Order: sequence, then C-alpha cells, then structure tokens
Amino acid sequence: MPKIRKSMASKVGLPPGTLLHIGDMRVEKANINVLHYNEDFINETYDAKVSELSGLVTRPGVTWINVRGLNSKTVECIGQQFHIHPLVLEDILNTDQRPKLGDYGDYLCVILKSLVVPTGADDYAAEQVSFILGPDYVISFMESLPGGRDVLNGVYERIKGRPGKIRRQSADYLLYALIDSVVDHYFLVLEHLGEKIETMEEEIVTQPRPDLLSRLHALKHDMLFLRKSVWPVRELVSVLERGEAAYIQESTLIYLRDVYDHVIQVIETVEIYRDMLSGMMDIYLSSVSNKMSEVMKMLTIISTIFIPLTFIAGVYGMNFDNMPELKWEYGYPLIMSIMLGIALVMVRYFRKKCWF
Amino acid sequence: MPKIRKSMASKVGLPPGTLLHIGDMRVEKANINVLHYNEDFINETYDAKVSELSGLVTRPGVTWINVRGLNSKTVECIGQQFHIHPLVLEDILNTDQRPKLGDYGDYLCVILKSLVVPTGADDYAAEQVSFILGPDYVISFMESLPGGRDVLNGVYERIKGRPGKIRRQSADYLLYALIDSVVDHYFLVLEHLGEKIETMEEEIVTQPRPDLLSRLHALKHDMLFLRKSVWPVRELVSVLERGEAAYIQESTLIYLRDVYDHVIQVIETVEIYRDMLSGMMDIYLSSVSNKMSEVMKMLTIISTIFIPLTFIAGVYGMNFDNMPELKWEYGYPLIMSIMLGIALVMVRYFRKKCWF
Amino acid sequence: MPKIRKSMASKVGLPPGTLLHIGDMRVEKANINVLHYNEDFINETYDAKVSELSGLVTRPGVTWINVRGLNSKTVECIGQQFHIHPLVLEDILNTDQRPKLGDYGDYLCVILKSLVVPTGADDYAAEQVSFILGPDYVISFMESLPGGRDVLNGVYERIKGRPGKIRRQSADYLLYALIDSVVDHYFLVLEHLGEKIETMEEEIVTQPRPDLLSRLHALKHDMLFLRKSVWPVRELVSVLERGEAAYIQESTLIYLRDVYDHVIQVIETVEIYRDMLSGMMDIYLSSVSNKMSEVMKMLTIISTIFIPLTFIAGVYGMNFDNMPELKWEYGYPLIMSIMLGIALVMVRYFRKKCWF
Amino acid sequence: MPKIRKSMASKVGLPPGTLLHIGDMRVEKANINVLHYNEDFINETYDAKVSELSGLVTRPGVTWINVRGLNSKTVECIGQQFHIHPLVLEDILNTDQRPKLGDYGDYLCVILKSLVVPTGADDYAAEQVSFILGPDYVISFMESLPGGRDVLNGVYERIKGRPGKIRRQSADYLLYALIDSVVDHYFLVLEHLGEKIETMEEEIVTQPRPDLLSRLHALKHDMLFLRKSVWPVRELVSVLERGEAAYIQESTLIYLRDVYDHVIQVIETVEIYRDMLSGMMDIYLSSVSNKMSEVMKMLTIISTIFIPLTFIAGVYGMNFDNMPELKWEYGYPLIMSIMLGIALVMVRYFRKKCWF
Amino acid sequence: MPKIRKSMASKVGLPPGTLLHIGDMRVEKANINVLHYNEDFINETYDAKVSELSGLVTRPGVTWINVRGLNSKTVECIGQQFHIHPLVLEDILNTDQRPKLGDYGDYLCVILKSLVVPTGADDYAAEQVSFILGPDYVISFMESLPGGRDVLNGVYERIKGRPGKIRRQSADYLLYALIDSVVDHYFLVLEHLGEKIETMEEEIVTQPRPDLLSRLHALKHDMLFLRKSVWPVRELVSVLERGEAAYIQESTLIYLRDVYDHVIQVIETVEIYRDMLSGMMDIYLSSVSNKMSEVMKMLTIISTIFIPLTFIAGVYGMNFDNMPELKWEYGYPLIMSIMLGIALVMVRYFRKKCWF
Repeated sequence: MPKIRKSMASKVGLPPGTLLHIGDMRVEKANINVLHYNEDFINETYDAKVSELSGLVTRPGVTWINVRGLNSKTVECIGQQFHIHPLVLEDILNTDQRPKLGDYGDYLCVILKSLVVPTGADDYAAEQVSFILGPDYVISFMESLPGGRDVLNGVYERIKGRPGKIRRQSADYLLYALIDSVVDHYFLVLEHLGEKIETMEEEIVTQPRPDLLSRLHALKHDMLFLRKSVWPVRELVSVLERGEAAYIQESTLIYLRDVYDHVIQVIETVEIYRDMLSGMMDIYLSSVSNKMSEVMKMLTIISTIFIPLTFIAGVYGMNFDNMPELKWEYGYPLIMSIMLGIALVMVRYFRKKCWF
Repeated sequence: MPKIRKSMASKVGLPPGTLLHIGDMRVEKANINVLHYNEDFINETYDAKVSELSGLVTRPGVTWINVRGLNSKTVECIGQQFHIHPLVLEDILNTDQRPKLGDYGDYLCVILKSLVVPTGADDYAAEQVSFILGPDYVISFMESLPGGRDVLNGVYERIKGRPGKIRRQSADYLLYALIDSVVDHYFLVLEHLGEKIETMEEEIVTQPRPDLLSRLHALKHDMLFLRKSVWPVRELVSVLERGEAAYIQESTLIYLRDVYDHVIQVIETVEIYRDMLSGMMDIYLSSVSNKMSEVMKMLTIISTIFIPLTFIAGVYGMNFDNMPELKWEYGYPLIMSIMLGIALVMVRYFRKKCWF
Repeated sequence: MPKIRKSMASKVGLPPGTLLHIGDMRVEKANINVLHYNEDFINETYDAKVSELSGLVTRPGVTWINVRGLNSKTVECIGQQFHIHPLVLEDILNTDQRPKLGDYGDYLCVILKSLVVPTGADDYAAEQVSFILGPDYVISFMESLPGGRDVLNGVYERIKGRPGKIRRQSADYLLYALIDSVVDHYFLVLEHLGEKIETMEEEIVTQPRPDLLSRLHALKHDMLFLRKSVWPVRELVSVLERGEAAYIQESTLIYLRDVYDHVIQVIETVEIYRDMLSGMMDIYLSSVSNKMSEVMKMLTIISTIFIPLTFIAGVYGMNFDNMPELKWEYGYPLIMSIMLGIALVMVRYFRKKCWF
Repeated sequence: MPKIRKSMASKVGLPPGTLLHIGDMRVEKANINVLHYNEDFINETYDAKVSELSGLVTRPGVTWINVRGLNSKTVECIGQQFHIHPLVLEDILNTDQRPKLGDYGDYLCVILKSLVVPTGADDYAAEQVSFILGPDYVISFMESLPGGRDVLNGVYERIKGRPGKIRRQSADYLLYALIDSVVDHYFLVLEHLGEKIETMEEEIVTQPRPDLLSRLHALKHDMLFLRKSVWPVRELVSVLERGEAAYIQESTLIYLRDVYDHVIQVIETVEIYRDMLSGMMDIYLSSVSNKMSEVMKMLTIISTIFIPLTFIAGVYGMNFDNMPELKWEYGYPLIMSIMLGIALVMVRYFRKKCWF
Repeated sequence: MPKIRKSMASKVGLPPGTLLHIGDMRVEKANINVLHYNEDFINETYDAKVSELSGLVTRPGVTWINVRGLNSKTVECIGQQFHIHPLVLEDILNTDQRPKLGDYGDYLCVILKSLVVPTGADDYAAEQVSFILGPDYVISFMESLPGGRDVLNGVYERIKGRPGKIRRQSADYLLYALIDSVVDHYFLVLEHLGEKIETMEEEIVTQPRPDLLSRLHALKHDMLFLRKSVWPVRELVSVLERGEAAYIQESTLIYLRDVYDHVIQVIETVEIYRDMLSGMMDIYLSSVSNKMSEVMKMLTIISTIFIPLTFIAGVYGMNFDNMPELKWEYGYPLIMSIMLGIALVMVRYFRKKCWF
C-alpha cells in the first residue's frame, strides 16, 4: 500500500483555492468520456472537449462525465463551467485528501479513496476518486488513465451493457452505484489481506522465521492505511443515507443504507484483522522465546552432564606422585563406570523434569 | 468456529439486488414447513409448495413459514409473493451478512447469526437465520436442512406440543420466541467456551505446554467471531424493545426487554472472557519464562561449582618439572579436600541466595 | 469469589416465565420474616405463611417481607398474591441475573449482587438480592438462610432497635436503606481486597515467588467479578436518583444521590485496583527478569574468569617433548602469577562495568 | 502521597447522616477564624465561638468562616446553625469523600482534595477541603490546624493585605478564589512530579538500576491518586461555570471558566505523565534486556574462543604412546600458532557480526 | 520539541488577572507592525507606538496589528485601549496556555501553538500565537521577534504582495488566513517527523542499535507534545466553523471548514504515527531478542560440540597405569576419528533443527 505520508509541504504558504495537483501520476491531458443515457437511449462521447462539457448536461437524461487523469488546467476549466467552488477543486486535485462529503447546495462533492488488489507482484493501487453530483449529472475524477485497474469500469460497462435498473434511475442512483463500486473493492482488498493473514498464521505456528516480523509490521501498516481510508466513509455515507443531502431522492436511500451496512462491515473486519495481527505478534514473540528456551535446555543438558565428568577426568590427569587409584588394576574401568553412572542419573533427572 | 473471512468477492461488480446465494451449503430444493395456529387449532403443512405460500397467510391466526435450505430461486419466488425488496432478499441469501434489522413498513426483516455447540468432535455450527415479520405471519430462513442441530426446533416443538402462551399471542410474539431461542443458544456456546477456558486455566498453572499457545489463540478467534455475531444484536433488539418497529405490540415489549438483558449479559461475558484470555496469555508467557529461569539456574550452579574445580585439576595436570606439591605425600588428598571445601562454600552461597 | 460462569444451560429451550431456581443453595422451605412498623409501633412476624402475605400489607404503616431461601414454589405463590409478572419472578429465581431495575408501574423490581467478606478461610460470599417495592411494602429475596453472613441484617436490627429516622419514613426509604446496606458491603470487600493487594505489593518487591503470579491472577478474577456486579448498579441507582421511578418520593432522592456517589466511588476504586494489579504484574515480570539477569551475570563472571585459565593449564598439561617452559626452575610459579594477573584484570574489568 | 485505600469500614452499618470523623488528624477543638469584609472595611475574628457563628453572617458584607481542624461536634453545631443537611455534614467529616458539588437551594457545597508539595523529606500533604456557599458567606472546612502548609492561606492574606478586586466582589467570587487556590496548588504538585520524572528519565538511559522500578511504580501510584482527586473536579467546575448553581453571579462565570481551563490542563498533564511513565517502564525493561544481552555476548565470545582451544590442548595432553606430533621438534610452537590463528579468525568473525 | 513541563509555579498565589509574562523569551520592547488595507490601498506602519494603536483601527478597511515580542507592559497597554478583559491578557502572556477560543461579545480571542521545523541542528521552534478579532481589525501576538522563523510571515507577504482575495475580504477572513497558516505549518512538522520515523523504521529492521530506543522515546515525546498542541484546536475551529462566534461571516465558514478538515487530518496522522511508533518499539524489542537468541545458539552449538570432545580428550589424559587403548598403535588416530564422527553427527543434528 502507498506510504501514509505524502508530500504535504508543497502547498504550505499558498493562498486557499490555489489549484495544484498533489499526487504521483502527472498527465499532460486528461481523458474525458461522457455517457448520456436514460431508459430508452444511450450516447457515448469519447475524448470530449473540456470546453464543451457544460453544454452536454443540458440535454434531458442522466449524464456521466468520467474524467481520468488529474491535471490542474482541466479541473479548473470544469470548475468554471459548473460553478464549483475553488476549495472543492483544490480538494479534488490534492490526492492526499481525507475522504469527505460536501453539500454546496447546487452540487454535492464526494471524495473517496479507491483501492485495487495487485494483479501480480505489484502493490495495491490506491488513488483518490472524486464525484460531483449535480441535478442530472455526475462528474467523476480519477488519477489513473484508462486501461489500468479501474474501480469505476464495472459501472461503466453495466450502463452500456443492457438497459437495467441503473438506466431507469436518476443521477443520484448513478452516484450510489459508483460509491458502491468503490466500497465493493474494499471487500476484495480485505479478502486479499485476509488470505495473507491466514497464510502467516499457519507459518507462525509451524516455523517462526525472523522475516515474519517485518511482514507482520507491513500488514499492520496496510491496516492503518485501510482504516484511514474507510473510517471517514462511514460518516459520509451515513449523512447521505439519512437523506439530508441535496439531490438524493427518497427511493435511493434504501440502497445507500445497504452501502452503509457494507462500510460498517469493512470497518469491523479491519478491526478484527488488527486484533488478529496483535495476537499473531504475541504468538510470534512467544514462539521465538519457546525456541530459545529449547536451545537453552540443550545447552544446559549437555553442559550439566559433561562438566562433572570432565572434572573427574581432570582429577585423574593430575600428576601427583601419590595417587593410589592410578595404580589399581581396574582403576580405569571403575572410574569409567562411575562416570557412566553419573551421566545416567543426570539423564533420568532431566527426564523426570520433562526437559526432553 | 467458522472462518471470519468468507468469499466476499463473488458479488463484486454485480448490480444491487442480484440474488446469489453466498454460503457453504448449497441445496437444490428448500424444505418448507408451515405452522398455522391460534389458541384453538393448529395446522401443519409439510413440504409446502413455494407458489402457494401467499395463500396460506390470508387465513385468520398466526402462520409460521419455516424455510430450511437456502436457494436463490425459492427466495426470489417468496420475495415476489410477499412483495419483499430485492435488497432484503439479497441480504437473506448472502450468509456473510452482519446481523441487522430493517423496518420496511409492510414487513420487518431481522437477520441473526445462530450458533450451536458441537455435539462430538465437530466444530461450532454457525449459520445465518433470517426472519420476515408481516401482519400475522413470520417467515424464517435457515441454511441447514431439517435433521441437523436446529436452533428454531425448540420453538417449533413448543407450539406443536401444547396450547401454551405462544398459541394465544400474535405473530410478533412468535418473532420474539424465535429471537429468544437464537440468543439462548449463545449461552450454551458461552458455557462451552467457559469450560474450555477453565480447563486451560488449570493446565497453564500446572504444566504450560507450547500447544496451549495455539489453543489460546483459537479461543481468542472464537471470541472475536462471537463478538462480531452478538454485538450488532444489541442495537437491533434495543430498537425492537423500544417499540418503534412495525407490528411489535405493547404487550411483547416486556419480553423483548428480557431478550435485551440476555444479549447484554452475553456481550459482558464475552468481554470478561476476552480479559481472562489476555490474562492467561500473560501467565503462560511468564510460566515459560519462569521455567527458563529455572533451567538457567541449574546450568549456572553446575558450571559455577565445577569450572573452578576443573581449573584446579588442570593446574596439577601441568607437566612442569618443578612443582613441589606433586611430590608431597598427602598432596592429592589435600587438594581433593580443598576442592570439596570450595564446592561446599559455593553450595551454601547459592542456598543463601535462594537459588534452590 | 464465585465462578463467573454459572450453569446457564438448564433454562435454554423453556418458554419464558418458566420458574426454575438457578443457583447453588437449594432449600425446601423459605424462611419469611415480616416487619410491620411506623413511627409509633413495630410488629414482627416470624416464619410467616406464604399464603397470608398479601393480607399483611393492607395494614397502615410500612411492611417489610424478608424472604430468605429461594424456592420456586414460594416465589410463585408470592408472585400470584402481589400480581408480579412471571418474567420478574424468573429473574428473581435465576441467581445468575445481571443487576437490574424494572419499573412495572404497580411495583418496582431491583436486583443486586451482595458480597460479604470471608470471616475465616472461606471465600467471599456472593449472592443475589432482589427487592420488590410496592406502595407501602418492600419484599426482599435472598438465597441464604438466616444465621449466615447477611447484608440486610444491619437494617433489620436498626429498625427493631430504636425508633430512628427509618421508622418515620415510607417504604421507598426502606428500599434505599437496603440498597445502601448492599453497597456499603462493597466497601468492606474493597478494603479486604485492598489489604491483599498491599501485602502482595510489598512481597513482589522483596521476594517475587512464582506463586505470586497465580495469586495476582486470582485477584484479577475477583476484580472482574466485582466490576461485573457493581457496574450495572451505577445506571440502576442513577435512574432511581433522578426520581423517575414509581413510589420514589422527593425526600428520598438526596439519599439515593448519596448511594450513587458511593457506587461511583466503588467503581473508581475497582478501576484503580485493576490498574495497580496490571502494574504489579509488570513489576513481577521485571523482578523475575532482573533475578535471571543476576544469575546470568554470575555464570558469565565465573566462566569468563576460569575458562582462559583452564586453557592455560591445559596448554602446560600437553605432552610435547620440547616445551622449554616446563624445564624452567620458576616456570610453575611464573605461570601461576600470570594466571592470577589475568584473573585480577578481569575482576577489575567487571567491577568497572558495574556487574557486581 | 497518601494511600488510595482508607478505612471505609468503620461507617458500614450506621444509619445515613451519622456524623463520624473519618480521617487521620483528630483534634479536640477546631480553630475558627472569621473574616468579615467589603470594599471599605475588614474585620477579623480570631478563635470565634462555634455557637455565635450564625450571628456573624447577618451583617452586610461578605463573611468567610475558616474552620481548621475537623471535629464532629463542631461540624454538627455549625450544621444546625446554618440548616445544613446531615448528609452534607457527613460528607464534610468523611475525608475519604470523592470531590463533589451539591446544590441544595439554600446553600452550595463544594468538596475538593487539596494537595501540597513536600517541603523536605516528608510526603505530599493531601487533605479534604470543603466549602459551603450561602447568600453572603463562605464556610471552609480543613483538616489541618493553622501553622501548617495551608492552600487557603494565600487567599486569606490577599484579602487582609490590600483592598483589591476580591474585596469589591460578593461571596461567590470568594468561593472562586478559594477553588482557584486549590487548583493552583495542583500545578505545583505536577511540577514537582514532573521534575522527578525528568530526573528518572535521564537515569534510566544512563544507568538503569533495579530500584528505578519501584520508584516508577510509586510515581504511577501518585498519578493514580492525583487523577482520582482531579478528575471529578472537571465536571464540578463545569457545572459551576455554566452558571446553573445557586448564588453564582454572571460576572464570576468568566473566572470560573478560567479555573475550568486550568483543571483541563492539569488532567491533560496527568494523562501525558502517565503516558510518559509507561514509556519509561518500557525503556527500563528494554535497557535491562539490552544489558543482559551484552552480558550474554561476553560469555559467548569468551566461551566460543577458548572452548575449542582448550579441546586442542586436551588432545595433546592425552597419553597415547604413539602420538607423532609430540615428538616433533617444533610441535609445540606449531600448535600454539594454530591456536592463535583459530582465536584470530573467531575474533574477526565476531567483529564482522558487530558483537563488540 | 520543548519540554512539556514549564514553570507553572510562579503564578500560584497571585490574584487572577495579574499580568506576568511566563515564557522563555523576554524582551524589553515589543515590535509592532500595522497593516491597514482594503481592495484598493495598502498601508504599512513600522514600529507603531503602543499608545496610538486604538486610533489606527477607526479608519475604514481592515487593520492587522502584528505584535512580536511579549512584554507585560505592552500587552496591558493594548488591553486598555481595546477594552480586553484582564484574564484574556493573562492568557496571552502565559505562554503555557492550552489552545483555546474565547468569545467575549466585543471581540474574539484565539490562542494557538505554532510549530516550526528546525532549519539546522536546532530543535523545533514552538511558541504561543494569540489573535484578537474585533469588528474590522485583528491583533496578533507572538513571542519571537521579527527575523526568526515566523509562521505568520507568509500571510504578511501575501497581503503586501498583490491585491488577491485576502485584500477583498473582511477581518474574519484575515483571522482565517492566520489560523490556516499556523495549521499548515503542522503539516510541515508532521512531514519532518514522518521522515524521521521512516528512517528509523528501516534502521530497526537492518541494524537495531541501543540508541534507537532513546530516539524512539524522543519521537514519542514529540508526538505527545504535538497532540497536546493540536487536539484542542479541533474543538476550537469546530466552534468557529459552525458560525456561532462573533464577527465570523457566512462567506468565511467554507474556508474554516477547510481548516477543520486539515486539523482532523493532522490529528489522525499523529494518531497513526503513535501507532507506528508503538509497533516499532515492539519490532525493536523483538529484534534485540532475536539477536540474543542467535548469540545463544552460537554459544550452544560451540559448547555442545566441544564439551563432549574435551571430555574424551580428558579421559585419555588420565594417568592410570592400566589403560590398554593408550598402548594401541592406532589408538590416537582411532580416537581422533571417533571425535570427528561425534562432531559431524552433532552438526547434522543442529542443521536438521534449523539452527544455522
């Protein structure tokens, strides 16, 4: 997952409303596709011109303006046409924004974090997705260009595909469908993380290797990032779901309530995963300490058995002139038997103490 | 207990209201039993046909439609007859749902998790139980087929058995009795877990074996699952108990308040068990460390006594030409006595230090 | 203290309101004493008959029916005479109940846990105490028979003793006095526990023995039990003290506020004791680890000094033909002096490192 | 600081309102000084008689009755004159009371804990300070006799000193000044504790001695006591500051808000200190473990270097008849060189591993 | 960062409203610059005289009085001219104040903590910044003199620079801009701390040195300080943003909401950093314990291999007359081979146990 810290410094000192793209993917030109539809017809405009967008939304039916690739000029131009407050545009461009909902009377602004599971060895793709809901249009902003892993693509295809429910509904239902799609992808990420956690859980019990620790730490990081991304969505959807925001119709509330339930479920699962990770940390540490205790026992057993024997051998290696045992014919086998006896007594003692 | 993570992925990308059964037990055909009763009569219909259900609820008296085995076609058909919102049907079929209460004006939907203690070596049986409360009927949905361990069976038998209180009451009392039965089984699960905890508590003090750790971890898992299942029930029953939901009559409220108390008691006990498990973890770790400390002491005592003696023996094993002690007649017994003296002093020192 | 887990299983599956005594002390016959008093007279009825109780409360003045020994038949009979809801009777009989307050319009039901400090080697006596407050009577239910350690006895004696304040007041003041007596005994239990904690605190610093750990664990258990018993009392008394419950008069509120303050104080002290126990756990563990570290140092000092010396002795014990030092006249004293020098240097080094 | 546990047992079983002094300092006779003042005049009565107090407050101007030394007879007598509820008098006498505010219509009762930093080797002086605010008088109760370290003395001197702001204000401002003085002393205690913490913080890093542990534990105790004393003051002052209590004038509210801010600051600092103490505990434990690890390394290095060498020396100390190396002319220096080589290789290996 | 504890003691005992500067930087003379502007003109007065300030704010347009250097005489003089309550002046001078907002009807007082990242080796510069908002003026107070690192400088330059948005707005917008500038600097501090944390995170995994511990502790300290400084700002801005304070116009609310979002983001990041630091502590401790476990294994392997061999060598160094093996021609190579065999078996055993 991406770093929690992004460069927040570049905007400090600038007056509010200064449009400056803060993020990793910089593009020269945004790609804008427009879907215009109602129950009966559907119209797709590829690569629409920024300056003509405001004309497109005056037609009857729902219009979805899908802007991919963030670029301060494009966003500013769209802002002017749809009379969007500069602070809102600033939030859309600053991809380090906290998820939030703004109801500005004429339009609604929803900013979310989308998360996509990695396809191969690459990392989770996290980016900021912003929506502007007007009376009969939705403008969506994403950082990534078309072609990549795109959380909104499913909705796009569903509208184009067949004249389903979404085609019979108004723009607020489209907004719901887009938010729902973002939230649904959280489940995929959770499942991906859950698989990792389960794999590690087994490994920890069977063979606790030192690298588990940093992998546990990385997973904790991911959880922190996920929580940071999802937590504010709870309140945001809760406001929408209570039907207090502009343009949200009564009939859409039941669907938003469904999204709300999903968000709660994501949050609960994240908390449970955090609990499980803490538990795994404890188990890892105690496995390590168990292993060390085993090593210590080995050392102690060997030392405790052989140190007294070595001492006895040392005694009979002394060069005193007058050591009668050395002259005995069976001195040597006798002393060896005594040593064996001592060793056996000790082994039995350790057995009784359950040391091995 | 079942895994916390279920496959949430298969539904992502589908439009809302798509009916798809998400769960482990797939059946071709649901088994539907109908109980129709009031104080005076009782009527049981085995294996009712799905298409005729709506006719059954028009008769006076309370009707309980007990659907066992989840199957998207059956649920869809029931949904059409009773005019249930597709999102509600989706929740009933998606067995990874969070416990929740929905008041849809014409009907009430309650979704719970039932838990049954294992009879033999098998695991806790957890499944989703959903209830639809209409004006004078209750529809219950379970995943398991008849014959298994069934949390609702007790209520079923009680109604059939004798014309008790439940026969004199309306459908909301039936809903109460069903919820109460689910919550009562939580107590059985808690007691089962409590027994396990007590057994482990004794074992930990007497003989802390490494496998205790993973058993502790498994119990913590169970607690997390239980908490996840029970926590939302608190709020759910609280809403019912305040009498704000449709079809809930004044006279039933006192019973729901009783259920509410039970749920609080379950939650408190789960929290106490979690506290106890953390405490046991600490005790386990400290027992292990105590044991290791004992091992270390043994090593230290043996080494510290014999290392100096071995050194002395080594000294008189040196081959210098001019070592007068070696010529003394009583050099050998003298040096042996000195060694014995050193050993005794050391043993007394360790005794004083309370090492053994 | 008693086990946190009691047998919750025996009631599962029974219809609500089934009267079944759940507890440890089963009696054939309850002992019922009745005090009937006002400012001017006092009347005591020993061993009153269950069937005549309702007649006793019609007389002017306050009547206290003190039922000792729980028995489902007795409770059921009392319930019928005073028109008490079966669920309330069920709560009174089920001694695993959570402390709770029920306002049923005609009467008030208060359920508390009483705790009595052990007199000798026996354990804390915990039992459930229930009160029913009617217009001018209080019925109290206890599990224990007369003769034992009884938290209500003090109030009983006070009423009988001299015509004090309690004799001039109505039944709600009697209820207050009984609750106050139960809460006062919590202080005695806290003090008893506090003494134990202080004793252990001193022991931990002076000589941390392994059995301290299980005693600490037992104390933590006691705290969990105490918290579970006292926590709900806070809310319960708070409701009473706000004067929202039936039969509670304005003039009694100030006394209930006093009880409320006491309950808060008990809760705070329990939390502080829990904090202290956690701190003691840490100290115990770190004392153990300090002790082990001392053992290790001893081993290391002895080994580190003698191992090199033993090596040197070993070298001059080798049997090479050509070892010129062995022929020197002062070779032996020389090598012994070198060894002494090495030992002294090492001792000084360890001194400098503050190892002993 | 004083023990958290005081003897709570002596009052159990007595009827409410029984006046019994619970505390450490028992006096035969309380010392009562009365200050009577307004902007123009000031009147001081030393050692006022208890029976004449009610006459003193009828004069115009503000009267402060400063009672030092708690004694149940004195308090009872004052209570009768000023018509104070017996429960309030009981709270004043029971010095184990939780800080609290009571608004009894005719008068206001404020109970606080005062804390004074030790002057020499003695402990923090903690005692209970109670205030009764009437229409134009304040009665203050303290346990200590005049001459000691007295938190109210500063205010006393300020009033006597010069005709400042306090002389122009009514009795509620006097109450504010007294509470403010108590809270100000918390800052002194905090600073004293803060100095101790900083000293220990340095010690822990430089030389972690075992006695640090018990000093840390003692500081944690002090923090618990402080928190217990200050926490309820927050709510208490908050109620006063909202202007809901009797006799509190509009113009005094801004000053009470200032006290409220101070209390919040004290609480925050206590919480930060608690955090810091936990952190220091961790550092101490890890320093100990670091030190032990160092000891272990020393042992391991010495043992690992000399054990193989000693083995080699042992080999050439064997008495086999046929050991050709023993006959070689340069056998001895050769074997010594080999030993040196082995030692050097090992030292280099440990260097590479960063062991020393 | 500065110490959490400052000298709170010097004010204890003084009457409220006593003006006394509590802080580190004492100056003889404050430096006062005045900016007077509206959309059309801008006027800068350097080193304005304190006594003439009230005259400057009567002119139309917005006036910003920028006071740098705290000095009780200056503040008192300003207070008299603008009729500011002595308690407010006391708060401004006491630089150990908690961030707070006071709405005094005629003016608004905002007290914040400013934090500036160190430029070189010096520490974070923290100081108290206070603002007084009147109908068309803002007075700002800072401790530092001009020339240093000044969080308000950016706003100053922006106003002087070009006739931007800020010049067209009223005084409340200026207040917003100043608060925003303070909050923006928190991001810089967070980024600086974040970099430190990341550097340490890498170090901990690669080479956990003992000094990391005290650096971790220092970072935790910084976090505590930051949290203490930022936490109250949340509530403060929240009050402003709800438009309940005097002089705050409707049009400024959207900007304050933006500041509020930033403050929330700062708080969340601080909490995440605290979480990460705890995690790093755990990793550090477990790395140390891993390293020690490695050391132990080394010791155990070497000892366990050589101790038995040394014993065997010792046996054949005994001087018994009758030891037949010593006479064997191939006794010596035989015994050496046996020793080699034992060593190889042991090495293989440790390999199997995954010890190295």
